[in-house]
Amino acid sequence: MDILKRGIGVNFNAHNEAVVNVWAPDATQVSIATGTLVLELKPDLAGYWSLCTALIQPGDVYWFIIDKEQRLADPASLAQPDGVHGGSQAINTAYNWSDSSWENIPLHDYIFYEIHTAAFSHEGTFKGIINRLDHLIALGITAIELMPVASFPGKRNWGYDGVFPFSVQESYGGAAGLQELVNICHQKGLAVVLDVVYNHIGPEGNYLSAFGPYFTDKYKTPWGNAINFDDQGSDGVRNYFIENVLMWFRDFHIDAVRLDAVHAIKDFGALHILEEIRCHTSLLLEKTGRKHYLIAECDLNDPRYITAIGENGLGMDAQWVDEFHHALRVTAGEPARGYYEDFSGIQQLAKSYKDAYVYTGMYSVVREKTFGRKAFGKTNDQFVVFSQNHDQIGNRMLGERTSKLFSFEMCKLMAGAVLFSPFLPLLFMGEEWGETNPFLYFVDHSDPALIMQVRNGRAKEFAAMFDQGKTPDPQDEATFNQSRLNWELIGEHQHACIFRYYQQLIALRKKYFSFTSHEAPGVSILEAQNSLLLERKCADPTQLIWCVLNFSTEQLVLDI
Amino acid sequence: MDILKRGIGVNFNAHNEAVVNVWAPDATQVSIATGTLVLELKPDLAGYWSLCTALIQPGDVYWFIIDKEQRLADPASLAQPDGVHGGSQAINTAYNWSDSSWENIPLHDYIFYEIHTAAFSHEGTFKGIINRLDHLIALGITAIELMPVASFPGKRNWGYDGVFPFSVQESYGGAAGLQELVNICHQKGLAVVLDVVYNHIGPEGNYLSAFGPYFTDKYKTPWGNAINFDDQGSDGVRNYFIENVLMWFRDFHIDAVRLDAVHAIKDFGALHILEEIRCHTSLLLEKTGRKHYLIAECDLNDPRYITAIGENGLGMDAQWVDEFHHALRVTAGEPARGYYEDFSGIQQLAKSYKDAYVYTGMYSVVREKTFGRKAFGKTNDQFVVFSQNHDQIGNRMLGERTSKLFSFEMCKLMAGAVLFSPFLPLLFMGEEWGETNPFLYFVDHSDPALIMQVRNGRAKEFAAMFDQGKTPDPQDEATFNQSRLNWELIGEHQHACIFRYYQQLIALRKKYFSFTSHEAPGVSILEAQNSLLLERKCADPTQLIWCVLNFSTEQLVLDI
Repeated sequence: MDILKRGIGVNFNAHNEAVVNVWAPDATQVSIATGTLVLELKPDLAGYWSLCTALIQPGDVYWFIIDKEQRLADPASLAQPDGVHGGSQAINTAYNWSDSSWENIPLHDYIFYEIHTAAFSHEGTFKGIINRLDHLIALGITAIELMPVASFPGKRNWGYDGVFPFSVQESYGGAAGLQELVNICHQKGLAVVLDVVYNHIGPEGNYLSAFGPYFTDKYKTPWGNAINFDDQGSDGVRNYFIENVLMWFRDFHIDAVRLDAVHAIKDFGALHILEEIRCHTSLLLEKTGRKHYLIAECDLNDPRYITAIGENGLGMDAQWVDEFHHALRVTAGEPARGYYEDFSGIQQLAKSYKDAYVYTGMYSVVREKTFGRKAFGKTNDQFVVFSQNHDQIGNRMLGERTSKLFSFEMCKLMAGAVLFSPFLPLLFMGEEWGETNPFLYFVDHSDPALIMQVRNGRAKEFAAMFDQGKTPDPQDEATFNQSRLNWELIGEHQHACIFRYYQQLIALRKKYFSFTSHEAPGVSILEAQNSLLLERKCADPTQLIWCVLNFSTEQLVLDI
Repeated sequence: MDILKRGIGVNFNAHNEAVVNVWAPDATQVSIATGTLVLELKPDLAGYWSLCTALIQPGDVYWFIIDKEQRLADPASLAQPDGVHGGSQAINTAYNWSDSSWENIPLHDYIFYEIHTAAFSHEGTFKGIINRLDHLIALGITAIELMPVASFPGKRNWGYDGVFPFSVQESYGGAAGLQELVNICHQKGLAVVLDVVYNHIGPEGNYLSAFGPYFTDKYKTPWGNAINFDDQGSDGVRNYFIENVLMWFRDFHIDAVRLDAVHAIKDFGALHILEEIRCHTSLLLEKTGRKHYLIAECDLNDPRYITAIGENGLGMDAQWVDEFHHALRVTAGEPARGYYEDFSGIQQLAKSYKDAYVYTGMYSVVREKTFGRKAFGKTNDQFVVFSQNHDQIGNRMLGERTSKLFSFEMCKLMAGAVLFSPFLPLLFMGEEWGETNPFLYFVDHSDPALIMQVRNGRAKEFAAMFDQGKTPDPQDEATFNQSRLNWELIGEHQHACIFRYYQQLIALRKKYFSFTSHEAPGVSILEAQNSLLLERKCADPTQLIWCVLNFSTEQLVLDI
């Protein structure tokens, strides 16, 4: 593998020839077709087929034909102009970057701002984000985090149903649009994080099995058969995802990836795919000098994922901590239903401030088993926390943000709890002005059976948590439209006030807590008052900062 | 958990009362029945039900009744006098031990001798082994390793179809018989290793699902649904196997367990069940002062299994290395068919002498994927090697031992290759006199469909490796009888000669290589000659020993 260029799909060399590579280990013949032209590929090593030709040019729409059967889009397609059921488009990802002075910021300075590209702006595109970057800079965040941008079925999707991991959704602006966004972000001093999904492939437009053993029935995930990372034929599958992460870092200058639900990546091999991704990311750093972070969403409370490879860990830099969110929400008054049932309030929030994980070997009623272990020797910048995110909002039946569920004052307190935490804070778009529109789950599938399955699945999922109301139809375009940000709000009194409050909190965080010491804060519970006292060291070692979080409705008097 | 006494099943306290504990988390009523007596258990914590009664006495046969449905034997039964479909017998495992001066031998001094209890002696019992211990001591081995003894269906079985992990097969001599064997072994200076199966439960007589979620359909194993080590309700399942390993160590004075096929133990939780077993084994050591080893059969070439817990490993002491066997066999002339297809000879044998694992990140044709990783920083006493074992013999269609497949001289060479290796050697019973009887796969099931399935399964398995001959019927008693050792042979000329040869090799190993230094040997390949030169340091640092292994038919002249 040449780590400096993409080794699969259609790429263009210095002579503007198309270099075609596709993995089809069981095929006896592989061709590429564009227009009326059909070219045969030659078998290469390890189940790959290849061709170098001047007959395919950027812009051409092409298909693969395996063993003279149906035409198939390229698993490593860079563009799907006609959607997931259409052909692939050859494009040249060479880009005229002007971010050579950009250097990734230290992880401990990350303040994430999560964005759904379509719902963020009127435009619903990367351009729409570019047009709002000055707002984000005024807010003070240091990194935008894009929900998955891989081509998905239909016109609306959260992104987790993506089926072409290398192709940037056309309606968002495609590959060039994403590159422009990253380039401008870097010029403005913002890092860009991309959410990538390596635990499953969406249910519609997924033709991967026609090419090779991408899936295995050895393990089940919530989304069906697991991706084959350790079974027969897995080398090509592993390479596919390694190529993917390298492409984002190398060709799109993405600063960090957020690896979706790594607990659903089932790999019992001696070299876990996450470790192999870490190794390749480190190799790329050696070649380019550019640092990239790997941030896992992980629901295992297993510190091995964020432990260095040299210590037999999997080498992820950081991970999301949903349990901080759950403890915070219940402390703030969220009823302990559904997955909140494991949470009781202030003591668990205090534990999370100290240990990140709440469940470190205790019995979980929701999981019906003993769960987790303590994360010894980890640093605070290895944990990402939030008071809401796309999942925590969108996985409610009515998609309510905290602004709809908690009082004005409680929302401010929750923002403080996140932004003054020792961990890395993440905001969800619109949170900074108390957006009142929901963020609902939306899809745009074409298969009626699948649409029904998604509808029923959502309704069933909500049954445990919500006993009244009707689940909005994920397939209905109105559901998506309701979920878009309302930028008008920011000018209105109370919302303008919240925005200034977020600005202040972020400014204070940067002023006092932007430091490299990773000691856990002192945490005292003032339980009678449902309050916490965080005692934090700050950049100036002669200073000590106390943050008082009073979740009660009573006034709190502290003797100092 | 009181680590010093068994917490599940029926046990007797100091007042000779039966203390009954059973895990049945979904039950609404649990009773124990013996004769005409039926006693109700009380619900205890975490899905357990318990009772203390003087009405059940040692010798009583009992059943559990859950929610007034069918009678069920105890999952933690200590005896199944009427077989796996019968009731459980309450017994008192207190034993009058006379091995208080016994101290487990250092792992590097282990020379294993694998025994199938029924096929080993005329008697087919633990007594039969006791009667032959002087032969084993004369041979020089330091540890006997018993194939699984847990109660299995029918009268004949390798042991891997066991369904009562706590119950010692009645026909072997039951719990007291095993205790007597261990007691006498210890008096004679032999360690006892027991093969335990924690990756599946046999297909016949398996009533565990009536008690709780012992299995999960999240993962598939070659033997069906995996045991539930990480899914909902897994705490009780984990506890069941932890109690099992503790019982063997504490109540039977077993010195080490060989954990069967740990690669089929699927556990994605933050605390792997093997690590938890290690922790409890260490806790027991703290209480009793007795050391016990955990030796894994592991087909992953993943050194994490034998890495200390403090280094984020799973804490197994040692593991079997099938690849040493495969490399040795192919070097000796075994055709590279079936699972030998990945092996080509002397170079891989040399690699195994140095690195233990042959595949350390190379592509395996048989596995159809890149396999394994290098085991850095491991010591030689963490690997167990052999030129044959129950699997390698019995998984041949005709069950031939090396004596039937290789020349007299080659058999001697293979014995030397194992016994002069830096790793821990294991012999299979009868190997020491070149037993000529096969060791075939045998079962004694009662379900015709299962019998047919086993028959067809074996035949299918052999299709890839053996193109002629007929697979002996595993169900036929004659198949078992053919597999028994023929002790008469040892008096015959050539066999007596081999026995003396093994004695000599073992004596030489003990004299020169019984040392604590764990350096890898120097290995030079004399390839033109299909020979290896092992250069080994020995106990006396001024001495150096050269072992020349000449697998060719040519004479080898070495210039020294």
